[in-house]
Amino acid sequence: MELFTITARDGDARAAVLRLAHGSAATPVLMPVASQGTVKGVLAEQLAALGVEMILANSFHLLVRPGLDVIEQAGGLHRFMGWDRPILTDSGGFQIFSLAKLCKVGEEGVRFQSHVDGAVRFLSPEDAVRCQERLGSDIAMVLDEFPGYPCEKDAAERATARTLRWAERCLAARSREDQALFAILQGSVWPDLRASCAERLAAMPFPGYAIGGLSVGEDRPTRTAVVKASAAALPEDRPRYAMGVGEPEDILPMVASGVDLFDCVIPTRCGRNGRLYTFAGTANIRNSRFRLQMTALEEGCPCPCCARTPAAYLHHLYNRDEMLGPILGTLHNLCFFQRFFARIREAIAARRFAAFAGEFLEGFARPAAEEEAGA
Amino acid sequence: MELFTITARDGDARAAVLRLAHGSAATPVLMPVASQGTVKGVLAEQLAALGVEMILANSFHLLVRPGLDVIEQAGGLHRFMGWDRPILTDSGGFQIFSLAKLCKVGEEGVRFQSHVDGAVRFLSPEDAVRCQERLGSDIAMVLDEFPGYPCEKDAAERATARTLRWAERCLAARSREDQALFAILQGSVWPDLRASCAERLAAMPFPGYAIGGLSVGEDRPTRTAVVKASAAALPEDRPRYAMGVGEPEDILPMVASGVDLFDCVIPTRCGRNGRLYTFAGTANIRNSRFRLQMTALEEGCPCPCCARTPAAYLHHLYNRDEMLGPILGTLHNLCFFQRFFARIREAIAARRFAAFAGEFLEGFARPAAEEEAGA
Repeated sequence: MELFTITARDGDARAAVLRLAHGSAATPVLMPVASQGTVKGVLAEQLAALGVEMILANSFHLLVRPGLDVIEQAGGLHRFMGWDRPILTDSGGFQIFSLAKLCKVGEEGVRFQSHVDGAVRFLSPEDAVRCQERLGSDIAMVLDEFPGYPCEKDAAERATARTLRWAERCLAARSREDQALFAILQGSVWPDLRASCAERLAAMPFPGYAIGGLSVGEDRPTRTAVVKASAAALPEDRPRYAMGVGEPEDILPMVASGVDLFDCVIPTRCGRNGRLYTFAGTANIRNSRFRLQMTALEEGCPCPCCARTPAAYLHHLYNRDEMLGPILGTLHNLCFFQRFFARIREAIAARRFAAFAGEFLEGFARPAAEEEAGA
Repeated sequence: MELFTITARDGDARAAVLRLAHGSAATPVLMPVASQGTVKGVLAEQLAALGVEMILANSFHLLVRPGLDVIEQAGGLHRFMGWDRPILTDSGGFQIFSLAKLCKVGEEGVRFQSHVDGAVRFLSPEDAVRCQERLGSDIAMVLDEFPGYPCEKDAAERATARTLRWAERCLAARSREDQALFAILQGSVWPDLRASCAERLAAMPFPGYAIGGLSVGEDRPTRTAVVKASAAALPEDRPRYAMGVGEPEDILPMVASGVDLFDCVIPTRCGRNGRLYTFAGTANIRNSRFRLQMTALEEGCPCPCCARTPAAYLHHLYNRDEMLGPILGTLHNLCFFQRFFARIREAIAARRFAAFAGEFLEGFARPAAEEEAGA
């Protein structure tokens, strides 16, 4: 059975089915983030009820706590967290670069001090593969070197070259047939570096490719251009994954460039903070304009709050610091992104993706400006 | 249709069906507490899935925020919070006595300063009825005077006498046919005061009676004796409600005395704190003994966590301060109390309640002692 079957194309955009050990996912898809083995505030059964087909978990966090021994004894990450659909794990590299103290990268791997207990640890490309094999995720990511942002071009070149060498080592280290190992492109903001990295990786037998080093502070036009150059240089028949993206305004041009997978904390983090997504823009649910809104936050939204309660109830919960506010807001945002991606896939199938993207952005942008004016 | 139909008796204990405007409930029943219009951390649909048939909401909190105007515009409390089964509301009196500043009780009612905005407010028995009619609950409670604890007997007598006069005023003030107004017994720790209060209230046409002034600092034998004396003096054919109770060790003797309704924050508050209930006792899920427990917290428990994940996962969530820990713990505790009350009802129907209570307490007490020893 093929890992990745393209079912529709519209320009460079494509809709596909990704088949993994724990089930399949229709792409383009957004993976909610379960950093610590939980999508914050959401039960596995609620994710499934929302139609979520894949989630992302962070190897680094799970490796530190509860530790691989615990998860392995539970029978793998799926059983530990009670989620029986696909999981993608990252390599841990990005968290080491951003969270660990005294991170030191050498050719063998990364030496770092744990931000939790101060212990000095070491992660090689082979370790990263082994960790993820022990977690038992459906998709594992290679260990890559992120050169930081911003960075000089020669530093980006060196990191890219090492990322390529590490990708080969990761490939050689893998031992599980039921786990797909994806490569990661680096190259910072230079399209030529990105393209050459993509070509070198494409020559290796990876079943999928991620575009790394995104959403680290670069502006949106840069991000969009980097992804476009990267996607264009990647094999057409294999899935492409934009790591850590993103906002609808990022997602749409990337889908247009042929990106298939996304992961982002926005639905959950904004859900907790009270920034709720609707097709008419985002709204701060704590705003007093919701105090007496007796209609749903978004009419027609099937999420548990919109289907049953007025926006005024959500407003009350957030303003009383009731746990149920962030819970319902997170479910609502996840539901919004599920619906958004379903519309993306439908538009590609109908070969009207560009028109859909334009209509969406027009509707999405308008009331955000209104809110600005009213605030 | 009768409000209260007794279906089985075992000594003074009884099983019954309570029929209310928004549906019926099998008693004995424990109402989870939704102080601010939400059972903390739990969706209405999750409550329904657990089999919860009735909840309690606090008029005082809702009156202060979001305000009755908001809830009335939503079409009542049921619609506001998306819960379509029965709701019991308290009168607000107890919260005024315990939360408000400068609380002053006169014959007309209670004058108090809001703990939120410092505004001086006034609540009469008639206001309490009107408030709850606007909320639209299935069962409303009279305004009573709680004399504090501990208190002198003459103070308890005066408060009881006023409670009786206020009960008559509440009865006269009611205007909704679809809401049952329950009286409240006071009398502090004196069985004779409790009994005379019960007799006087029983002469008034209330469809149900609550035993108030409990769980305010008195010891368990006193609490049990007060409830026993109160229940014995109440009409046999009408429901009896022990307010703010409780722990399984409180509930069992009160059921034996013929109490039908209970409400308590224990399942939810303990759920948030990580004290989880099982038929083998309570457990602190943060305890390291759960780090590698790969079986469910309680085998056979149908709650979302026990059914899907090992206790080690719950332990991980609580120790990482993940929202999902308290959510799952709350659901587990609610599920435990649902199962506990189902067994109580079954035992009454089988006329083996005393045996059941003994068996339960034997199993429930043992590992708590073990935990103590291990701590």
